[in-house]
Amino acid sequence: MTIKINPARLWNDIIESGKIGATEKGGLCRLALSEEDRRVREWFVEACRAEGCEVRFDELGNLFARRAGHRTDLHPIAIGSHLDSQPTGGKFDGILGVLAGLEVVRTFNEHGIKTEHPIEIIDWTNEEGARFAPAMQGSGVFAGVLDKETILSCQDREGRVFGEELERIGFRGDDACGDHPLDSYFELHIEQGPILEAEEKVIGVVGGVQGMRWYDITLKGRASHAGTTPMKMRRDASVAAAEIIVAVNRLAQEIGEGALTTTGVIEAYPNSRNVVPSRVFMTADLRHTRVDALDRMEERLKEVVAAICLQHQVSETLDRLWDSPPVQFDVECVDAVREAAKRGHHPLREITSGAGHDAVHVSRVAPTAMIFIPCKDGISHNEIESATPEHVGAGASVLLEAVLERDHHGS
Amino acid sequence: MTIKINPARLWNDIIESGKIGATEKGGLCRLALSEEDRRVREWFVEACRAEGCEVRFDELGNLFARRAGHRTDLHPIAIGSHLDSQPTGGKFDGILGVLAGLEVVRTFNEHGIKTEHPIEIIDWTNEEGARFAPAMQGSGVFAGVLDKETILSCQDREGRVFGEELERIGFRGDDACGDHPLDSYFELHIEQGPILEAEEKVIGVVGGVQGMRWYDITLKGRASHAGTTPMKMRRDASVAAAEIIVAVNRLAQEIGEGALTTTGVIEAYPNSRNVVPSRVFMTADLRHTRVDALDRMEERLKEVVAAICLQHQVSETLDRLWDSPPVQFDVECVDAVREAAKRGHHPLREITSGAGHDAVHVSRVAPTAMIFIPCKDGISHNEIESATPEHVGAGASVLLEAVLERDHHGS
Repeated sequence: MTIKINPARLWNDIIESGKIGATEKGGLCRLALSEEDRRVREWFVEACRAEGCEVRFDELGNLFARRAGHRTDLHPIAIGSHLDSQPTGGKFDGILGVLAGLEVVRTFNEHGIKTEHPIEIIDWTNEEGARFAPAMQGSGVFAGVLDKETILSCQDREGRVFGEELERIGFRGDDACGDHPLDSYFELHIEQGPILEAEEKVIGVVGGVQGMRWYDITLKGRASHAGTTPMKMRRDASVAAAEIIVAVNRLAQEIGEGALTTTGVIEAYPNSRNVVPSRVFMTADLRHTRVDALDRMEERLKEVVAAICLQHQVSETLDRLWDSPPVQFDVECVDAVREAAKRGHHPLREITSGAGHDAVHVSRVAPTAMIFIPCKDGISHNEIESATPEHVGAGASVLLEAVLERDHHGS
Repeated sequence: MTIKINPARLWNDIIESGKIGATEKGGLCRLALSEEDRRVREWFVEACRAEGCEVRFDELGNLFARRAGHRTDLHPIAIGSHLDSQPTGGKFDGILGVLAGLEVVRTFNEHGIKTEHPIEIIDWTNEEGARFAPAMQGSGVFAGVLDKETILSCQDREGRVFGEELERIGFRGDDACGDHPLDSYFELHIEQGPILEAEEKVIGVVGGVQGMRWYDITLKGRASHAGTTPMKMRRDASVAAAEIIVAVNRLAQEIGEGALTTTGVIEAYPNSRNVVPSRVFMTADLRHTRVDALDRMEERLKEVVAAICLQHQVSETLDRLWDSPPVQFDVECVDAVREAAKRGHHPLREITSGAGHDAVHVSRVAPTAMIFIPCKDGISHNEIESATPEHVGAGASVLLEAVLERDHHGS
């Protein structure tokens, strides 16, 4: 017998969840620890309890809905993601991974399946980081990557404190955050990129998450009059910045497959049309799946910035302000996802996640894998974020199959 | 007999004038039609009357201090510039040209020289345009380039009206603006650029003012996630903008001697470090002494912008929002300046003005020339703007000699 999830039921859950914090353009504004976060959590807890799950939450508000297994000596196989959104976010980012967990539990109940391991659905607190920075706080503290007290005392822009807001919405639990071993962790998510859609694949088998380094670059030249300063006497920070942007862009080509380079921020001073800019602030975002490639990219970045600035008589500072190393997911869990996708005859593709996810943190404390499905035009963090019912259903099916595989044959 | 101006007296006038609206850093804040403008005008009028000049002002507040000549049938030889400043301006920009006129008159009085033509010292209203835009309003209306009623009714940022402010400070005259023929016009000014200083020249013989064209360029690409969008699927507005900045800078080299190109403004949206920019707004400032060269530069600008945008799948708008044609000053007046500089054994250089001046407008209605002296590090529109007493004295000497030459041999 093949047991099948019910795609229409899952889709309906997504639509229902999407009513809590709905925006006019069809998206979501459901910031972490807001009234909307409270409401979606209450709705979700009720749905889980209706399926017989025992619901607990820890001191960070991470929410665990447990369906018992045959054996009580095994740690749970977890399925999760997050229910919070960006201020103008979509209905799928994060939400899909949590609600697909609920759908898996419903399907098990419907078919009277009792797994060996307990199954847990997890809603991680504040994945988006839109209200309280940084992002991925619940899973970060859970995995020991972020400091609990720092997170509990961090403030939003209006000075409201994380811990107090968590208390206010009624989800500050007693369980110590992180004191909760998992057998394994599976996260279904929209790709948030254009690759699956462009290649007409339905399932992305996520092998890991690429590494990422962020740099601030400040160039200082000399402000001078655009009409009276000969070209040769200029120390033009904007021309130096432009050459650096071109070089950063070329760097991806130079390094080849797997390299991504972006200059997202450019600010010129005094930013006046008839003044040669004295100063430019800019950023560089370098990504790759391998640390040695990231090292090489950083080295080249330093070289080109130094050479360009020397040529233009512009002084520079280049600071690396973030280094997130590449993550490799658990081989067995990834295999379980791949095999499930194959058995379901879904067009699949091996893929590396370009964005961060709760799974990045969780992978430090439990065998982890992720499943991607396409999203329309690769657009996410946007109210027009969209995915099809077919792809949502395929993703949840693969999730269920991978969980069963793990339950039968996992470590 | 050689008559000589008194450099110490002129320097002292500059220091005295610099006390009206003085800033802590040694500069000036003397915005047009402000209380400070009233005070410096009153001080200046008193000084001119003390030298026997008849002072009139027209309906725009342009101020004419006339020293009579032998002949009453000749129009006056005028010497002028402006007494207003930028909000954080210097003591020399404009002021030198007016006070040097006063020094010329004092020298004539001291030596009992009576010229054939009347001599007039002119303070043009609101050259800087810092409070009421555009710049060069008094001379612009005088020359018929700007509309009188438009200027009289224009407002500052606080909604105060030009005409009312002019009335308030007591300098709205009855004379029709422009109804005041001049034999010729000489303006002494600091260079506001670094060329004379770099080449150790004392006098710049200004042959004209370069032409200038201003462009707004908006590039529209597609915002996408820096971590999930493959390089080949990007439509990156910042990379296109960077290539355009590099190309605009190269354009000056391509066109050669006399071409100046500047990108002063660059603004990226959403200006977030992990988002490929969807849009960039930027400017281009192209300058040259010849219209045909400006035409060629504009043509090339359009070509490179179109080619770069096509390559990056970015759409563009390119608007020319200002075109100020090159100005050639009067050959005889320029010759008079050159000969005066030679007779004074001042190291001189032919130079084109890169910035706009009242002389640009006046040259439309009277034979005109300008004299430049060096300013420290080429810096102007800045409280640290500076010139030496020696150069100020040399400039005023050349001015006096050129005026005498015009008086004896002019048309």
